[in-house]
Amino acid sequence: MTSTGSQPKVALVIGAGDSTGAAIARRFAKEGYIACVTRRTADKLQPLVDSIRADGGQAFGYSSDARKEEAVTALFEQIESEHGPIEVLVFNIGANVPCSILEETPRKYFKIWEMACFSGFLNAQAAARRMVNRGRGTILFTGATAALRGAANFAAFAGAKHALRALAQSMARELGPHNIHVAHVVVDGAIDTAFIRDTFPERYALKEQDGILNPDHIAENYWHLHQQPRDAWTFELDLRPYMERW
Amino acid sequence: MTSTGSQPKVALVIGAGDSTGAAIARRFAKEGYIACVTRRTADKLQPLVDSIRADGGQAFGYSSDARKEEAVTALFEQIESEHGPIEVLVFNIGANVPCSILEETPRKYFKIWEMACFSGFLNAQAAARRMVNRGRGTILFTGATAALRGAANFAAFAGAKHALRALAQSMARELGPHNIHVAHVVVDGAIDTAFIRDTFPERYALKEQDGILNPDHIAENYWHLHQQPRDAWTFELDLRPYMERW
Amino acid sequence: MTSTGSQPKVALVIGAGDSTGAAIARRFAKEGYIACVTRRTADKLQPLVDSIRADGGQAFGYSSDARKEEAVTALFEQIESEHGPIEVLVFNIGANVPCSILEETPRKYFKIWEMACFSGFLNAQAAARRMVNRGRGTILFTGATAALRGAANFAAFAGAKHALRALAQSMARELGPHNIHVAHVVVDGAIDTAFIRDTFPERYALKEQDGILNPDHIAENYWHLHQQPRDAWTFELDLRPYMERW
Amino acid sequence: MTSTGSQPKVALVIGAGDSTGAAIARRFAKEGYIACVTRRTADKLQPLVDSIRADGGQAFGYSSDARKEEAVTALFEQIESEHGPIEVLVFNIGANVPCSILEETPRKYFKIWEMACFSGFLNAQAAARRMVNRGRGTILFTGATAALRGAANFAAFAGAKHALRALAQSMARELGPHNIHVAHVVVDGAIDTAFIRDTFPERYALKEQDGILNPDHIAENYWHLHQQPRDAWTFELDLRPYMERW
Repeated sequence: MTSTGSQPKVALVIGAGDSTGAAIARRFAKEGYIACVTRRTADKLQPLVDSIRADGGQAFGYSSDARKEEAVTALFEQIESEHGPIEVLVFNIGANVPCSILEETPRKYFKIWEMACFSGFLNAQAAARRMVNRGRGTILFTGATAALRGAANFAAFAGAKHALRALAQSMARELGPHNIHVAHVVVDGAIDTAFIRDTFPERYALKEQDGILNPDHIAENYWHLHQQPRDAWTFELDLRPYMERW
Repeated sequence: MTSTGSQPKVALVIGAGDSTGAAIARRFAKEGYIACVTRRTADKLQPLVDSIRADGGQAFGYSSDARKEEAVTALFEQIESEHGPIEVLVFNIGANVPCSILEETPRKYFKIWEMACFSGFLNAQAAARRMVNRGRGTILFTGATAALRGAANFAAFAGAKHALRALAQSMARELGPHNIHVAHVVVDGAIDTAFIRDTFPERYALKEQDGILNPDHIAENYWHLHQQPRDAWTFELDLRPYMERW
Repeated sequence: MTSTGSQPKVALVIGAGDSTGAAIARRFAKEGYIACVTRRTADKLQPLVDSIRADGGQAFGYSSDARKEEAVTALFEQIESEHGPIEVLVFNIGANVPCSILEETPRKYFKIWEMACFSGFLNAQAAARRMVNRGRGTILFTGATAALRGAANFAAFAGAKHALRALAQSMARELGPHNIHVAHVVVDGAIDTAFIRDTFPERYALKEQDGILNPDHIAENYWHLHQQPRDAWTFELDLRPYMERW
Repeated sequence: MTSTGSQPKVALVIGAGDSTGAAIARRFAKEGYIACVTRRTADKLQPLVDSIRADGGQAFGYSSDARKEEAVTALFEQIESEHGPIEVLVFNIGANVPCSILEETPRKYFKIWEMACFSGFLNAQAAARRMVNRGRGTILFTGATAALRGAANFAAFAGAKHALRALAQSMARELGPHNIHVAHVVVDGAIDTAFIRDTFPERYALKEQDGILNPDHIAENYWHLHQQPRDAWTFELDLRPYMERW
């Protein structure tokens, strides 16, 4: 165990490669959680790990293929043996790749589901099994508007996100009585990321008016959900800029 | 102005006669807000006002018929002239009176809508007009599962709650760009109140297992909503005990 | 009884002043139902009554204030004593009057609810009481997209339509086991009416491409709902032109 | 071309192995459509094909693995070259296998999605490409309550059905303007099948009171959807017995 405290607590963020996942990891680290963060290639996680440590927190990066059962099993084993119980799992992998239904390839349709939904199943199940044994835990899913309705050119992404929400809802209903808090956050709007800055500069310009989501503010809501006492749990909340049309 | 501070801020709770409204008032008072609380007969509010003051907060009780335009207009006038700008409005009046559709009287169908929805319109509109002029404000509605779906014997209550949610959603979409945060909280489950204790003792017994909602924990979420920066606002969240079937 | 047949059956359309209500009345009359149609001033119904009769059907027009309990009670009494059992009730009164929430008057907010929802309650309840005694009947509500979500400037209409849908859903759940089929039709798009023709000529021009709803085609779905055997009832369906954005 | 008529029209039912698929095939054959029906092993389709032919209709059975792109491509090629244009596609494969989230295997989670959703994507896409070229067509999906909400022990099935509904909704929005009618039918309740008869005899006993769905009555609604003129299309309707709790 790397932690020397009496009660190490791990917050595991699957898909910490984007700014949202990073911000969530940072938020939990700030509260004393050991932030374990994953993406497919761990070296890209080093800046995040370094910055959390520079702020006095604990963080560890892992390369993990979230779509592979064996990799997921091994990851959970390693983290819990090295750092302690995973108290919080955040599943934060997206795959928003629009395409006309007439052009979508079966391979890409599958890949989007595999990344954005099947990975969620594998990781959430691995967490749930351990949490049920301990009688506590929090599992948080990052959702999107596409989880609520389909749209032209979004059959694959909407399908994956709908399925992920169904997973979250089914788990919430089954695991709530086991004291496992499962919740789903619908992020509706552009997030302050390099991708938005470089690809949609006009959209990004709204940042000056607070028109795009600040990842730290998203993260605050994940922390809020985790803090809720069990007599008043939220299953779902949405997040969008005040000026967003919806 | 009773407040001597440089920037008095009022949180007005319409329908503070129940434990939820009282807890919300207490929560905002704790943060330095002047808690203005209403119910039809103000004298029943004295214990709440006294307890907030005993904790070092500021509180004022008002008797107000929330269903009457003139009364609402007068209330907002009086509060803002006596205490300062209403930064937060909480509409918390319910009217959960089940009845078969075959037995429901037109008068009661109307009364339930008038209390649980029309009052919400009057008070939220009064707040919105003032908030739009100031370019800021928060309006929070207490909802229920009946806002999301109808049920046998709940035509009147579900109708009022559906309409209130439509009001909240319409206001959120219209007023968001004016920097007014409008949100709707779906409370799903029994709340720790004298009513539940006396009427549903078996349900109330779940309190020992955290099976009923603690009003203070509900209130915490109202405070959280009010605190959200405007780039990441929630329109809707649900609250229910971990063991609730839904 | 004006009908000389052995089993007269009445289809009552509340709010037959528009083209949708008229088309529904015509559709049921074509199947042998005695079409009883209402609006506030009956003389405007004469062309509809005449045209149904010219086609060999039976039709009767009634002026009725659908918002008044006594008027509704009297109407049902009169129709059943004059023509026979009301087998089908169609509630088709709308009140789509958009307005900013900042400008909406309490009077208009109330009036829209009274027309589009309270009238629905009064008439559906009157029908339900008679139908439950006979152990059969169909109650159909005309809904709108505003029944499903609020929108800027639509707080009043969305509120009334949400409440009407809650009424429909609550009645469906309570009365289904009594063999009363309650359904709600969401019409989403412009209908081929004089109002659309005169007010939105660009929209109306889409008629050549079938881009606006034909009232007869809407009516066909009301007939379809009424025809469903009771082991396979629909509670809700939507109707929109193929080219509508939604 | 086996059909000698001037305008052969094919209705293709993917997953005609159950009573619902069979009833739908029969319904379209009755209207003159060449009913092409598939399941994994075609010989089990012979009784259905024979019965349609005995009634004077045209029917052809195909064994087809709906989960394999090549098989789907070959099936559509063969049917259109042998019989004519596929005017109607019905996707009717389910996979309702409940399981605790703690016990569900990744393989089964995948298989359920592959059968109930990925097959739908492959077949609907193959149909859409041909229909868009012809500027007309109907694609109908059999859905379930699990398409609308998750439930304990139904993470896999709810996920697949949610994703299928997202596919239907995305396709409806993209292909509607191309004159392709895409719709999704939510069947909520037990259907009159050998499976229900043998597995849930108490449920099946409700048949005497019309408490379970008659497949022919389900099929009637598929026909109704296909018949709708394009100015008034339904995207979604639900079907349930009058006595069902929901």
